[in-house]
Amino acid sequence: MKEHIGIGVIGFGTVGVGTVRILQENRDLIHRRTGFYLDVVRIADIDLETDRGIDIDRSILTDDAKALIADPNVDIVVELIGGYEPAATFIKEALEQGKYVVTANKALLATRGWELFEAADKNGASIAFEASVGGGIPILRSVREGLCANRFESIHGILNGTANYILSQMSQTGMDFEDALKEAQQKGYAEADPTFDIEGIDAAHKIAILSTMAFGVRVPFDAIPIKGIKEITQLDVLHARELGLVIKLLAIGVWRGDELEIRVQPVMIPESHMLAKVNGVYNAIHVIGDFVGSTLYYGKGAGMNPTGSAVVSDIVSIARQIAKGSSYDVPPLGYPLRTFRETGIRDNSKVKGTFYLRMMTVDRPGVLSKISGILGEKGISLSSVIQKGEGEEPVAIVMVTHETSRRQIDEAIQVIDHLDVVMEPTLALHIETELK
Amino acid sequence: MKEHIGIGVIGFGTVGVGTVRILQENRDLIHRRTGFYLDVVRIADIDLETDRGIDIDRSILTDDAKALIADPNVDIVVELIGGYEPAATFIKEALEQGKYVVTANKALLATRGWELFEAADKNGASIAFEASVGGGIPILRSVREGLCANRFESIHGILNGTANYILSQMSQTGMDFEDALKEAQQKGYAEADPTFDIEGIDAAHKIAILSTMAFGVRVPFDAIPIKGIKEITQLDVLHARELGLVIKLLAIGVWRGDELEIRVQPVMIPESHMLAKVNGVYNAIHVIGDFVGSTLYYGKGAGMNPTGSAVVSDIVSIARQIAKGSSYDVPPLGYPLRTFRETGIRDNSKVKGTFYLRMMTVDRPGVLSKISGILGEKGISLSSVIQKGEGEEPVAIVMVTHETSRRQIDEAIQVIDHLDVVMEPTLALHIETELK
Repeated sequence: MKEHIGIGVIGFGTVGVGTVRILQENRDLIHRRTGFYLDVVRIADIDLETDRGIDIDRSILTDDAKALIADPNVDIVVELIGGYEPAATFIKEALEQGKYVVTANKALLATRGWELFEAADKNGASIAFEASVGGGIPILRSVREGLCANRFESIHGILNGTANYILSQMSQTGMDFEDALKEAQQKGYAEADPTFDIEGIDAAHKIAILSTMAFGVRVPFDAIPIKGIKEITQLDVLHARELGLVIKLLAIGVWRGDELEIRVQPVMIPESHMLAKVNGVYNAIHVIGDFVGSTLYYGKGAGMNPTGSAVVSDIVSIARQIAKGSSYDVPPLGYPLRTFRETGIRDNSKVKGTFYLRMMTVDRPGVLSKISGILGEKGISLSSVIQKGEGEEPVAIVMVTHETSRRQIDEAIQVIDHLDVVMEPTLALHIETELK
Repeated sequence: MKEHIGIGVIGFGTVGVGTVRILQENRDLIHRRTGFYLDVVRIADIDLETDRGIDIDRSILTDDAKALIADPNVDIVVELIGGYEPAATFIKEALEQGKYVVTANKALLATRGWELFEAADKNGASIAFEASVGGGIPILRSVREGLCANRFESIHGILNGTANYILSQMSQTGMDFEDALKEAQQKGYAEADPTFDIEGIDAAHKIAILSTMAFGVRVPFDAIPIKGIKEITQLDVLHARELGLVIKLLAIGVWRGDELEIRVQPVMIPESHMLAKVNGVYNAIHVIGDFVGSTLYYGKGAGMNPTGSAVVSDIVSIARQIAKGSSYDVPPLGYPLRTFRETGIRDNSKVKGTFYLRMMTVDRPGVLSKISGILGEKGISLSSVIQKGEGEEPVAIVMVTHETSRRQIDEAIQVIDHLDVVMEPTLALHIETELK
């Protein structure tokens, strides 16, 4: 058995430092568990100067990632640069040289993963990416291996800690969106440019990866309807509470027999559901399998240490195979590539459900009847209507519909938002009554 | 690659039927994922007559478990009889023949697991037991592989669905213990003899297995202090609520640097904690690792389908190795046996914390001062005292202590319970303020 496995880390930023620190601090523990040592033999970064606050042998630092990949002492290439290029090129090069790759690069995997999986397949290499979804939560391993006896029915995930922090603060402290975002930025939970987080794009990357794995179908990233949380106001948070509901940004994948319903959007869920209780920067993923039933996985979705924990778990799994001279036996996506098919992604307009509608209108008689008339024409029936606040404009009209389709809702809103009396774009949130 | 893996199932009861059903219904799905078929080639049970409501070829049924084990077509032996004997004999025989074993037998593993692990080790076989803890939740795999980068700090588990159902009902409906137990029995959540569930023994079996794996130390089952939930009353449930706490039967393993603190008992936890939100027959395990931080795993802890899901996940992992002619690379307990040591189990009397004390006394002046005098003598200081109800005896005196040791509490209670004025044994519950 090989007693030393060489690790090359490309990208010595936050996650890179976290990963190297774990490999240092828990080196003996991992040796005790596995019988081998994980040696960081090279680290590549374009910045070789900045002090990372970690004690390493400077001679292993290089700015030449390709040399790292080609180094015969590097058994496992760990890509932690992020972004599309040069990350994709480096990963492909490593796989073409038959090396194992570990990455946390969700954006790359979600949008261009297939070329990487094919490169791994072709070259008898493998690629592992536990850290790309749910940070430290071993969710991919759970879906791919722990629940492999099951046909998956649905996945509902809180997959972005920044967005969840903002929504939690709005719900718990009464803050509005802008203040909660500012606080998240001050605390380091949100970046200066928070677009990917608050617009739902990051969560969409993750549900794309997770759904590909769980349902065994190729998910074209561009087909995922994505909506962020910017439009959510205190009014919506309070109305949700009155209805016994909580607003969460969910990334959803549901298998509809022959099609995948996949979407990322703020939705309302019952306050008694476990997902409703996930607050702050935590992530959680609710997975239903045909035999296991409801399961949930919860933990920190980001940060150098949790993400590093996931990266190192992948390194250990691969190193176990290298140590005994075997090949990795679980396909990266749970299914062999040849068994995948392009699936119909369910047209979002066909998605059915009950909806929360919030309209901001002038305070004038007849507005309510005009709006409910339009809804009626589109075949939408209502289960409740709340009109609150008088005098100060705009006034809010809140409605909850009976089951209807997204298409009907969208068509109705288009007409409603053109009315003179409607002062702001109408908000429509799916109420996830189906969530078990 | 071997395309057909032979499965022999010993014990065709609830979990056996669940397992065979999954192997039938998801046979093609598993083949698509893995490239092989899992064939149930033999099923052994002493009862060959009862109709299990499942369509099987009756020629594979046998009452001869030893013949099943020796059958060259059986690659994996699945032991689902439960209990100590003859299960232990069958498992050892299979391992001695170099066969892989999958079992859900927590009682056996917790009390006599070591002889089985040694038999596996000696014969180059392996034993897998995901179904023994947390039913369908892939918790062992998460601890052993998903979190293998971490030094574990603590495990707090709701590991018995029956006890959790009873406590949840007591909290949500105001039922008392006896009625909640009766309801659980009527619904099939509790057995006619519910001792193992309500006395905490079943949960202790599971935390023994989980702690052995997480902390890499041998846990002598008899050293675990175990307390059940029979003494919990509505009074305690209501007082907990006033304090912002919830009563849960927790199985706890905490690493104290050089010793393992391990105990099973009803405790009070903050109502905001994720574990407090786990209701009904669900299980959940809260695991803290040094890098990953807090994580939680939630799902159904029992039942034929969830348990079968875990059994089949083990079968698939082992079958992957058999199919490619390799050996199983992850030791059953996460660490190789030779690295284990007998650990000091922390003396329960040294466990520190704040405690909830509930005394039932006669309604007479001076009782409170007598009791608080005794507590003072034992060095126990109080953070709050509630005395409620007048007239009808016994009256309850409820106290919350500052940090103290279990020893001090037990000594004080021994004196208090001998007072003439004290009418029932005093209840002391640990308040888990430390729980993150």
